[in-house]
Amino acid sequence: MVGVSILAAAVLAQIPVTPDSADGSDGRIYLWVALGVGVLALVAALMLARSVIASDTGTPEMRAISDAIREGAEAFLRRQYKTIGAIALALAVVVFFGYKLSPRTEPFASKTVISFLVGAVCSGLAGFTGMYCSIRANIRTASAARTSLNKALQMALRGGAVTGLVVVALSLLGVGSLFLFFGGLEHPEAVPYQLVGFGFGASLVALFAQLGGGIYTKAADVGADLVGKVEAGIPEDDPRNPAVIADLVGDNVGDCAGRGADIFESTAAENVGAMILGAALFPVFGVKGILFPLIVLAINLIASIVGVFVVSTREDEDPMDALNKGFYVTSALALAGFAGAVYTMLNGPLVKPLWLLACGVVGLITSFLFVWITEYYTESRYRPVQSIATASLTGPATNIISGLAVGMETPAMPVVAISAALLLSYYFGVQGLAGVSGISDYAKGIYGTAIATMGMLSCAAYILAMDTFGPITDNAGGIIEMSNQPDAIRERTDKLDSAGNTTKALTKGYAVGSASLAAFLLFSAYLEEIKVIVTAKVAAAGGYMPVGWSFTNINLAQVPVFVGALLGATLTFLFSSLAIKAVGRTAQMVVQDVRNQFKENPGIMAGTSKPDYARCVNIVTGAALKEMVLPGALVVGLPVVVGLIFRHFSASYQANATVYAPGAILPVPAIGGVPVNLAGAEAVAGLLMVGTIAGVLLAMLMNNGGGAWDNAKKYIETGKYGGKKSEAHKAAVVGDTVGDPFKDTAGPSLHVLIKLLATITLVLAPLFV
Amino acid sequence: MVGVSILAAAVLAQIPVTPDSADGSDGRIYLWVALGVGVLALVAALMLARSVIASDTGTPEMRAISDAIREGAEAFLRRQYKTIGAIALALAVVVFFGYKLSPRTEPFASKTVISFLVGAVCSGLAGFTGMYCSIRANIRTASAARTSLNKALQMALRGGAVTGLVVVALSLLGVGSLFLFFGGLEHPEAVPYQLVGFGFGASLVALFAQLGGGIYTKAADVGADLVGKVEAGIPEDDPRNPAVIADLVGDNVGDCAGRGADIFESTAAENVGAMILGAALFPVFGVKGILFPLIVLAINLIASIVGVFVVSTREDEDPMDALNKGFYVTSALALAGFAGAVYTMLNGPLVKPLWLLACGVVGLITSFLFVWITEYYTESRYRPVQSIATASLTGPATNIISGLAVGMETPAMPVVAISAALLLSYYFGVQGLAGVSGISDYAKGIYGTAIATMGMLSCAAYILAMDTFGPITDNAGGIIEMSNQPDAIRERTDKLDSAGNTTKALTKGYAVGSASLAAFLLFSAYLEEIKVIVTAKVAAAGGYMPVGWSFTNINLAQVPVFVGALLGATLTFLFSSLAIKAVGRTAQMVVQDVRNQFKENPGIMAGTSKPDYARCVNIVTGAALKEMVLPGALVVGLPVVVGLIFRHFSASYQANATVYAPGAILPVPAIGGVPVNLAGAEAVAGLLMVGTIAGVLLAMLMNNGGGAWDNAKKYIETGKYGGKKSEAHKAAVVGDTVGDPFKDTAGPSLHVLIKLLATITLVLAPLFV
Repeated sequence: MVGVSILAAAVLAQIPVTPDSADGSDGRIYLWVALGVGVLALVAALMLARSVIASDTGTPEMRAISDAIREGAEAFLRRQYKTIGAIALALAVVVFFGYKLSPRTEPFASKTVISFLVGAVCSGLAGFTGMYCSIRANIRTASAARTSLNKALQMALRGGAVTGLVVVALSLLGVGSLFLFFGGLEHPEAVPYQLVGFGFGASLVALFAQLGGGIYTKAADVGADLVGKVEAGIPEDDPRNPAVIADLVGDNVGDCAGRGADIFESTAAENVGAMILGAALFPVFGVKGILFPLIVLAINLIASIVGVFVVSTREDEDPMDALNKGFYVTSALALAGFAGAVYTMLNGPLVKPLWLLACGVVGLITSFLFVWITEYYTESRYRPVQSIATASLTGPATNIISGLAVGMETPAMPVVAISAALLLSYYFGVQGLAGVSGISDYAKGIYGTAIATMGMLSCAAYILAMDTFGPITDNAGGIIEMSNQPDAIRERTDKLDSAGNTTKALTKGYAVGSASLAAFLLFSAYLEEIKVIVTAKVAAAGGYMPVGWSFTNINLAQVPVFVGALLGATLTFLFSSLAIKAVGRTAQMVVQDVRNQFKENPGIMAGTSKPDYARCVNIVTGAALKEMVLPGALVVGLPVVVGLIFRHFSASYQANATVYAPGAILPVPAIGGVPVNLAGAEAVAGLLMVGTIAGVLLAMLMNNGGGAWDNAKKYIETGKYGGKKSEAHKAAVVGDTVGDPFKDTAGPSLHVLIKLLATITLVLAPLFV
Repeated sequence: MVGVSILAAAVLAQIPVTPDSADGSDGRIYLWVALGVGVLALVAALMLARSVIASDTGTPEMRAISDAIREGAEAFLRRQYKTIGAIALALAVVVFFGYKLSPRTEPFASKTVISFLVGAVCSGLAGFTGMYCSIRANIRTASAARTSLNKALQMALRGGAVTGLVVVALSLLGVGSLFLFFGGLEHPEAVPYQLVGFGFGASLVALFAQLGGGIYTKAADVGADLVGKVEAGIPEDDPRNPAVIADLVGDNVGDCAGRGADIFESTAAENVGAMILGAALFPVFGVKGILFPLIVLAINLIASIVGVFVVSTREDEDPMDALNKGFYVTSALALAGFAGAVYTMLNGPLVKPLWLLACGVVGLITSFLFVWITEYYTESRYRPVQSIATASLTGPATNIISGLAVGMETPAMPVVAISAALLLSYYFGVQGLAGVSGISDYAKGIYGTAIATMGMLSCAAYILAMDTFGPITDNAGGIIEMSNQPDAIRERTDKLDSAGNTTKALTKGYAVGSASLAAFLLFSAYLEEIKVIVTAKVAAAGGYMPVGWSFTNINLAQVPVFVGALLGATLTFLFSSLAIKAVGRTAQMVVQDVRNQFKENPGIMAGTSKPDYARCVNIVTGAALKEMVLPGALVVGLPVVVGLIFRHFSASYQANATVYAPGAILPVPAIGGVPVNLAGAEAVAGLLMVGTIAGVLLAMLMNNGGGAWDNAKKYIETGKYGGKKSEAHKAAVVGDTVGDPFKDTAGPSLHVLIKLLATITLVLAPLFV
């Protein structure tokens, strides 16, 4: 990509620049600072992990259960990474030879594949480390719960913090060291385009991790319930159920490893995207604009470490209050750091940094709004959950209807919040850079939305720590339950478990929010990438490149773009359908195996002999991994197919076949005298943008609808409408079961899908022109 | 709008025209032919209605039930039309003064309001007539079933044909006579823009008719079931249930009146849209291109009358085969007529009509594909329904999960079909008009998609007859059941009822298909409208209008357009949520009233005294009408709010603020030296386009998912998986109940919503610039 970037720089060089920032030398220090903080955060995570692992592990009985969970989870991850590794290697070969095929992309083949593989390995490592720690923290949390609520809370949060810190630090170190390695300090404005493979690798692994883990966790859960509670009539988490360990394993592989990979690729993709936009503004901020996202990540790490350590609770306090205190401390520190970074890095004689800081504040406020809206829709003290509980009185049908109605209502408020955030941060961006000439208002505004996204992500590590807190406390509760500890201890873990359910729901809201706010950042990075490719192509063919030409027009009134949009939206529906069906099929395998075990060994139900937990774990593992391939392949394949087909569409499919060039109009397919057909690139952009819209809405429907069903059941269990065992409770259990694959398989996988679409189109952009 | 149209004509006049078609005189005959056929079709419908009404009405017992249904349905329609009339009048005042406010739109105020009111009245009339006949055909069908299957089939289909013919004929006569009245024979190329109010009026009434009727029918159905079957333990259609008549009334007001208004506004909106595109191609086809859609409707009427009269069946035949035979005859005749119309009307020295005919064939094939795909997803012999039935074995939760998975899968195949149809008809349009100069490829291609839409609609009257056949046979079955007729007769009506369920599902598939294929036609009409408005504005301000300027760029990469798109998609989710919740709340009122009646009058359950059917009908009527207002207002209000807010957004929100003008580039907001801000118009276009995509997908999910649940229950009732009263059946009943508001309230209302968005934006376009 060196050729491309030199050309891009040549084009950009025609724009008047602010003199003090045009070379990279003055920004070198920021890269070293960011990398240094990244290394320190890893060290901090290691120390945290050691202190967690050094803690007491309770009774031998507890250890036996915990060991079974650990073995199952590690076995799943090993096999899952083998499958994902094979897929990633195959894709690496495809990308490599795809790039090699054309003389235009040939020089960038190795760098793209290297960053792809580094991204994939880092993503896998992030997921693995997170789970490694959480499957060890669960038993220590259970053991600490025997002493005090505060000790258990801190143990679980610190176990979660390992994941949060490792994920964000790996993202920072991965992007930062590739930037360094690819010569970022020499050609800072060119290197960001070479990092797109990193985001793609990260989101590819994340999609399969989230999807495979999501299928595993819900298939084990639903299967164990169907055959245990419904058929055999034994309670949840009963040790006689052969699927009970698979169920507890599921919490770890779905929530820990899956969500870790999800947030890893969020920070990775949005970082690379923001660096590309920073490169487009190189004349204004120099290398500092490119390194700004890395510094925000560094601030994020420091703020989150402090946040984790201020959390403590009293015995009679709601643990959620303590966790929120940590969140507010983290936010305040992050905001202060963010302000400092904006004033030192995004400054200049013609820049008004206050406006740019306002963009970041918009992002931070948006993350708060998303958290509050998610709370409103999923907590039992508000109308939505209560309406589902009331509807349960008239049976499962009305429970389901009412839950779906709540689910379909949920996107409205967040969409208004996101719309306001986009419009405001765009406006603030334009205002902040109003004095800078030679850059279009559009580029300024889009950079504003990128800063807002950075602002929203500036607490990511703490949020992730809170999220991983969920499965740790859930497992701790299960261990306490299965090892028959006294009630007082169980009360403590129940309190923590309930807080964990809330944090899990909030994190999903946060993940969707960041995905939708980041949408523009990622679209724009794709448009920038296409622009650089076209510039290179025209120059290579000896054509003249119109000054100021940009690729910023995705015309939905063109049939190929509309068809791409239609296919993108449909993709999200079909993907959800496949994911949900995969859960159903895998759950059937669990049911079958448990039935077989009961038949082969009657001693299990009698309590005289132990069931074969490992066999059940094995079966779910194999089935979940097989089932994740088809939906995953669909997401990877569709944009490629659309791009490759539509690139052959004639110009007569283009409504307004013109490009911007002051003083001259040039009908596509001739830019600067060179034939360039953008139909493929535009159709893919339509797919990406409308796929994102549909994906965000469906994800909110599923996450919040599922959460509301879950909590409506729990609300009834507190004694409302007849409490447990009432008809209303039975109806609410149906809703909860329907919500499971919604909120833990399809919904979270859709976040990743959105970003995978963005990164795959970034990497394969050269093939679409 | 005279001013606008003269200006538009002046612009168009600069394009070289084929000499023999530039004046309107030679096309006058086609208008008279179309109007003549419309009048004849009305006469035919009248004769059909009289022959149906003159038939035998069975026993006094049957008449008593039928009278109760008729009274309830007529009472609902009277009150509904009062409510809708008040809303329509209020909107007429808003539109009138909205237009009067600006000197630019002031001259068109009266004509727009007149066509709006004519459209609304015709739509109401179409719904009323259809229902008038079907609530009389039901008892005659029941009575005819006592003689033979063939007599009953013909009675029901002819009763349905009255609706089909009246709806299509009113659409033709309404548009045709307004065209004549507004001086279409003098300024044919200008008048279509003045008819946009007609489509708006039609779809406004259709939305409320479908929504109110849909809420009514499902609230009565669900409420009657909940309180009758579940609480009181009495069978369906038991005369002791005070809600049973309300349930039968619901079939008529939802399926007949609602669907009639839906198809009426489809033909109306698509006609007006196609005429506007015909006006844009005035230089090529003259007045004949503008009148082509009216002639297609006339062909439609003739072909459908023949089709209805060839239908007959033997006692041992599947009635569906007979209905299909009629459909194939209608299609063949329509195709022949269509070919004749293309060769005589869309012809010229430079035109290749074979390509244009191919567009029509694409449309016809698409309608077949949609029917087949709908069959695949909703008939019990295929995998989807069977998978739901199998999932019912493990309880209601797996039934629901599996049904939702099927629903989310359903859009994939239809979307591929629609994509292919759009791309092909666009290509054929470009090829067919390749020899014509001065018209852009884009305009040619879009006209191709318009011809395809006409092709798809060329059997509309027959399809609607088949659809109305559904509620007539459903009611006939209910009357036979409640009046205790012998089993042999009941077998006949069961056969007809089953065919009726299939035709109802197919019509919904057809309605979604036509809505999605017509999307481009309606978008383009909106873009044309904006172009004409801008042209007028620039000319009025004394600016020069760039030759060949067109408004065909809806750039999704602009923040306002993206926000519009996001809001459009969210609107469809929120609307569905509100519609479903309305059903739930209204059903609760039914439950409450039935409980009260049982308490007040213990003789009802003992069978010694009659329940007060009318009181229950009254309560549902009032509640349904109240509930339809909020979702309806949302659909009408959102595009207006978006358009009015974004029209004030500065040009810095526009990515590529350029317009097409050969030889010159003009940044918006200055076109021809006059400031024009298109941000509002573009944001509304984004809302419209992506709202259409999301609406189409959600409608397919709900219609087909609901149909599949329904038929999975029926499949189990045939004795599979334990048959009636088994646990699997109980689970399938839950799925069926959930599917009810999906397939009969939210799903069908979404079709109308899509078109209402298109027509409201057409009418209010002048306010957005």
